[in-house]
Amino acid sequence: MDKYIIEFNEEEPKYIQIVRHIKKLIKAKELKNGEKLPSIRELSKLLKVNSVTIVNAYKKLETEGQAIQKMGSGTYVKVKEENRNFLKEYSKIYKKISGGYYKDFIDFTGETTCSDFFPVDTFKRALNEVLDRDGADAFSNEDALGFLGLRDNINKYFWKGKLNNENIIIVSGAQQGIDIAAKAIINIDDNIIVEKPTYSGALNVFRSRRAKVFEVEINKDGIDINSLRSIVKKHKIKCFYLMSYFQNPTGSSYSLNKKKEILNLAEEYDFYIIEDDYLSELIYDANIKYESFKSLDRNDRVVYIRSFSKIFLPGIRMGYLITPDEFNDAIQNSKINTDRTTSSLMQRTLDLYMNSGYWKAHIKKLNASYKSRYIFMEKCIKEILGKKVEYNSPGGGLSFYLKISDNIDVNCIELFNSCLKHKVVFTPGVLFYKDNNEGYKYFKLSFSQTNNNQIREGINIINSILK
Amino acid sequence: MDKYIIEFNEEEPKYIQIVRHIKKLIKAKELKNGEKLPSIRELSKLLKVNSVTIVNAYKKLETEGQAIQKMGSGTYVKVKEENRNFLKEYSKIYKKISGGYYKDFIDFTGETTCSDFFPVDTFKRALNEVLDRDGADAFSNEDALGFLGLRDNINKYFWKGKLNNENIIIVSGAQQGIDIAAKAIINIDDNIIVEKPTYSGALNVFRSRRAKVFEVEINKDGIDINSLRSIVKKHKIKCFYLMSYFQNPTGSSYSLNKKKEILNLAEEYDFYIIEDDYLSELIYDANIKYESFKSLDRNDRVVYIRSFSKIFLPGIRMGYLITPDEFNDAIQNSKINTDRTTSSLMQRTLDLYMNSGYWKAHIKKLNASYKSRYIFMEKCIKEILGKKVEYNSPGGGLSFYLKISDNIDVNCIELFNSCLKHKVVFTPGVLFYKDNNEGYKYFKLSFSQTNNNQIREGINIINSILK
Repeated sequence: MDKYIIEFNEEEPKYIQIVRHIKKLIKAKELKNGEKLPSIRELSKLLKVNSVTIVNAYKKLETEGQAIQKMGSGTYVKVKEENRNFLKEYSKIYKKISGGYYKDFIDFTGETTCSDFFPVDTFKRALNEVLDRDGADAFSNEDALGFLGLRDNINKYFWKGKLNNENIIIVSGAQQGIDIAAKAIINIDDNIIVEKPTYSGALNVFRSRRAKVFEVEINKDGIDINSLRSIVKKHKIKCFYLMSYFQNPTGSSYSLNKKKEILNLAEEYDFYIIEDDYLSELIYDANIKYESFKSLDRNDRVVYIRSFSKIFLPGIRMGYLITPDEFNDAIQNSKINTDRTTSSLMQRTLDLYMNSGYWKAHIKKLNASYKSRYIFMEKCIKEILGKKVEYNSPGGGLSFYLKISDNIDVNCIELFNSCLKHKVVFTPGVLFYKDNNEGYKYFKLSFSQTNNNQIREGINIINSILK
Repeated sequence: MDKYIIEFNEEEPKYIQIVRHIKKLIKAKELKNGEKLPSIRELSKLLKVNSVTIVNAYKKLETEGQAIQKMGSGTYVKVKEENRNFLKEYSKIYKKISGGYYKDFIDFTGETTCSDFFPVDTFKRALNEVLDRDGADAFSNEDALGFLGLRDNINKYFWKGKLNNENIIIVSGAQQGIDIAAKAIINIDDNIIVEKPTYSGALNVFRSRRAKVFEVEINKDGIDINSLRSIVKKHKIKCFYLMSYFQNPTGSSYSLNKKKEILNLAEEYDFYIIEDDYLSELIYDANIKYESFKSLDRNDRVVYIRSFSKIFLPGIRMGYLITPDEFNDAIQNSKINTDRTTSSLMQRTLDLYMNSGYWKAHIKKLNASYKSRYIFMEKCIKEILGKKVEYNSPGGGLSFYLKISDNIDVNCIELFNSCLKHKVVFTPGVLFYKDNNEGYKYFKLSFSQTNNNQIREGINIINSILK
């Protein structure tokens, strides 16, 4: 027990000092993965502190992913390293792939439209028209909110003109939308809720804001409402980040009922919803009706984010955000402090592109093409992988989230490493969890960057490894 | 004294609780601006705490701009509100002006190139060439570092090929450079140093990271080295944000000696330099030699940021950042989590534009045009305002930083409000200070958005108000 003794300073809360001390022991390998920590009674006696202080310290260690509490048994050390090495490795590979370096790979990590579908000619035409029409203005700094014409078009085209143009902010893609909303709304130690599992790019932003993140399990029709309710009852929550359609990674879409219940809870318990509506253009299943949280929101509780990069042209970096009045100024300032404004020329071009009716035609074509890939991939998963995996069919979007059957003793990291040798890559499940310490049996296959031959070949390779 | 009594909790350091309590009293107007706080001895006796605890609390209040310590006299309350109202008002006006809404104003706030100088035709030619050459690739997501061709060009063109291309990251303008560097390097409560006064857009970023900001007075040839040394000796500093040429707002440029001394201190005391090299293309005075901190840096201590938006085309949002090896991964990840990547099409176009020799020709022309405006504005200030203002001639850049003479009883906020009625706007000095509570006698006049007639007219109006 000697190693647990601490000389406390007077400047900091004691539980913080205990946490730091135990983390130091873990780092020095004086505590090993799975080792049991002293009981609360033992440690409080040893350190001559209140037992609540030890409870708080252990809770904090758990939040930081350095301990697990097992009911009725005690608290155990968790070492995060192995995973971290893999995640580092994965991040390198992912950068190479999304940067276009590994062109001969079968790429199931894709999150954006395939370049075969880019409307290069029509976009070029729009671009030149803007340059001829606007001249130097096309290169000026825009209003921080974005080009008024485009905001007005978005309002008319997607929202039947019901919004106030001042609440629409043009952003450089959805990732920036999440980043500037987080900067405006979330402060250090604020409590926020995410779906479990969720998009890692959002988790990274919330980590960077030093928020306390609660994960709520997501089912086929949205998160578990009872879990949500019990969290918002216990904790003052600042906001809840969610994806309303084809949630990343699970593919779940919210039922109308759940949407309404969540909106009611937001009003009752005074929290905000960050709705990342990232792929709702790609609904294939006729039973899925499109109704965003934002469109159902009567109490100005929703920060709505939509990307144009994902389904249109990734390289133009564009999207928009709708702010509740309450955060209008804060989010606008956050945009200014992040990168002043989004490229003026690109905004004007997209505006003209939409005005000319190209947008509508493009989305229609895209939806049809992806739908056929979706059906093909579903067929391959069923016929080739069969009972080796479990999944729900999302009915839209660009991917399938698969669980490796319990009777197969392979986790997603092993599967990833083996596939990599065969030049097949996908997104491992661990990436979608707060502490990257769950989701070992899950992986995501996206078909946006793969044609039918590659889909079949890739799934055959996965199958050979799962055997 | 009763109002000062606190019931302490056990969870937080006592000085934090004292600070919160006093701020509550200020907010409730139980303490007024300029009111003397109890002496350290009195308050420590009353609250039964160590006198060091009171010293720490008062220090923190001062850091937060809610108190002033006067040597040998005590600590006094400072209320921040009046200023905050003006700053809010100013921020609204600034957004309108930079958004292009007030076209009939004489705009001395300009920080970017005038649209008269935009190379619209050559840029359009480059744009179309890229689209014909690269097709869909021009719209793909780039490598998170940016388009390799452009990075390589930057290396050759600006750095004689001496850099490693992997250390160059393309960013969406200098503001984003500051934001992603700050996210990668600065954590909550880290100590950082800025020049006093400094660029408010940088201050906002550091505030958002919850850093502790130390200001060091800047002179004609760079900051005061003795003050810098005494701070880095006393405090562990994470980084120092500076502008090497034509510092915003003062117009100062660093002497070679100061650059070397600062680089040595960085190595000795283990801190990093964020060098914002934002206008060095615009050197007019032949005595000013161009040598960036980065070019003198032997110990990989400098994060270098350069904007293309400011002097080229604001609406394309582009710049680059050079990372020390140590932060290469972190800054790259920070870019990904901020907006994934910068517009691919714009990167490729700028690349081709530079390759075709347009860039060099453009900068040459720009330098000549601005130089003549610079000379004209200096003449107007001298002839019209005369002894009403004091200033140093920067010898380059896009503005003059003026001090209203002590014998004129007008501050920059009053001057701003009066000028506004005559449709003349400039940047008030208070914006450039950490707590917006200094700089009342200063204001900045930029000539990037004004022709010679407007320069003369605007300065005449300022003169009539200063009378």
